[in-house]
Amino acid sequence: MKTSSDSINVYASATVANVACGFDSLGFAINEPGDEVALQRNDSGVVRVTKITGDNGRLPLESHKNTASVAVLTMIDELKRRGDDTSRVGFDIQIKKMMPLGSGLGSSAASSVAAVVGANALLGEPFTRKELLPFVMQSEKIACGAAHADNVAPALLGGFVLVRSYDPLDVVQIHVPDDLWCAVVHPHIELLTEDARRILKKNIRLDDAIIQWSNLAGLITGLMKEDYDLIGRSLDDIIFEPVRSLLIPGFDAVKGDALKAGALGCSISGSGPSIFALCRGEENARAVGKSMEKAFVPYQLGTDLYISQVNHVGPRTVA
Amino acid sequence: MKTSSDSINVYASATVANVACGFDSLGFAINEPGDEVALQRNDSGVVRVTKITGDNGRLPLESHKNTASVAVLTMIDELKRRGDDTSRVGFDIQIKKMMPLGSGLGSSAASSVAAVVGANALLGEPFTRKELLPFVMQSEKIACGAAHADNVAPALLGGFVLVRSYDPLDVVQIHVPDDLWCAVVHPHIELLTEDARRILKKNIRLDDAIIQWSNLAGLITGLMKEDYDLIGRSLDDIIFEPVRSLLIPGFDAVKGDALKAGALGCSISGSGPSIFALCRGEENARAVGKSMEKAFVPYQLGTDLYISQVNHVGPRTVA
Repeated sequence: MKTSSDSINVYASATVANVACGFDSLGFAINEPGDEVALQRNDSGVVRVTKITGDNGRLPLESHKNTASVAVLTMIDELKRRGDDTSRVGFDIQIKKMMPLGSGLGSSAASSVAAVVGANALLGEPFTRKELLPFVMQSEKIACGAAHADNVAPALLGGFVLVRSYDPLDVVQIHVPDDLWCAVVHPHIELLTEDARRILKKNIRLDDAIIQWSNLAGLITGLMKEDYDLIGRSLDDIIFEPVRSLLIPGFDAVKGDALKAGALGCSISGSGPSIFALCRGEENARAVGKSMEKAFVPYQLGTDLYISQVNHVGPRTVA
Repeated sequence: MKTSSDSINVYASATVANVACGFDSLGFAINEPGDEVALQRNDSGVVRVTKITGDNGRLPLESHKNTASVAVLTMIDELKRRGDDTSRVGFDIQIKKMMPLGSGLGSSAASSVAAVVGANALLGEPFTRKELLPFVMQSEKIACGAAHADNVAPALLGGFVLVRSYDPLDVVQIHVPDDLWCAVVHPHIELLTEDARRILKKNIRLDDAIIQWSNLAGLITGLMKEDYDLIGRSLDDIIFEPVRSLLIPGFDAVKGDALKAGALGCSISGSGPSIFALCRGEENARAVGKSMEKAFVPYQLGTDLYISQVNHVGPRTVA
């Protein structure tokens, strides 16, 4: 993503974290929806968020509160720590939100990933993609109270990403079968990640944990072997979904209809309320998405439907 | 493993269950040690264990108590259920134990796998290898009180095997890198699986479970990618090893020296007391094994050392 000019537009996409059995550990990127961030480099020494559209005025413009600018500021701090003179490094940032906030689709991650990838490009790429991860994790801390990586890592790197360890940070890219598609339905209710975490217990049954990690191991194996049936058999969350789904009206009906329509599996995206289904092929993903949206109708919630291949490439520059 | 005669000798090998982060979920087969079972088919309609050597008289000869004959009897029951006339199907079974009992190396699994694979061959292979699994699981129930599959599945199929689910039974073979070797040290103390299970808590911390399943996902990825470093980073058991290792004198010293000698990782084999280390290459495995044995010296326990490549093929006929 080299650039010779002083400005760049970067698109970064939504992500599905947890992926049924991979709570706080696994996530993947989809192609749509996503956010677009325009950066203009200048020598003011100041990082400013000059404009945000698509957020209904809900996101902060203050540099130390906005996730996009926080990621860029954290990156500049690291350059300074390395001995670079950053006194004249400045950016004007415009954020075009094209995805819902609080949807469980990694909205904050998309903006901050796009911003930091753009700023890195305008500075001549002092960091590799993977090296940018701590900076966007810092902005996740601002957004949802904890420096989780299961949205930002796939938004940054594309594909399925496993966060094997936080201490030390160790993220691992997982092979993604070509024909893996995703249908996501976002019902128009809003859940805060913090609330969705609060209802979880601090201890779990050992027997449940064994079932959960066996499924996660099966999912990883299925992805790497391109064994769609195994992926489907493994997409099961016996610990968190039964609790969190209570916060999503219509969840059982939507999931039931997704599976009836042939989805490999279906669960809550991140902490919800969006519901994702993994599917083999575009045609099936469209049929599954349609049936999921239809299942929401009796609950009289507005919904958005996104059909997309798993994103294999991560953020990209746009005109 | 077709045979035209009425007798066969089958060797089945030891297995390492749990594999650090894959408690009750993952296991792998090694080449040595193992048990040899000789079967003679006859038309008596009776399954007899006629001789056991190498067990110091500790294993039962009664057909309904011995794990090898139980597996064969369970197989014959299934044939009967399918409508076969089994009234004249009989076997004389001789078991040559060439591995320690109660060692955490799947001793009971090796004998029953060898027996059932041999009986299946003598009957013209009415069952595939995978179809034999429920029969040997039944004999595990006799041996250790629960129908676990994490020893019998790798003993039967070779390589690394994931038990994704028990209900329905779903076992998945995992790719094994060619250069993966294992050093196992068996200290001469005996732990009963039941006792080693009893000291485990029924509930675990969610935060610990997340670390554990992230490591298991990393281990699976490392195996399939042939990424030895990732295998090493993932071989960590933060839940069970700290508790179970208290039952094994010298564990910390042995593990510490294995890692110092360059092992990828080191943990308890099954429920112990054997300790395994995974290594890259034979040379390293030999060096690691030597240092592990040496670390046991101050504890004044006799030890057996086994160095072996991961077994890729499962049971085999022997002369």
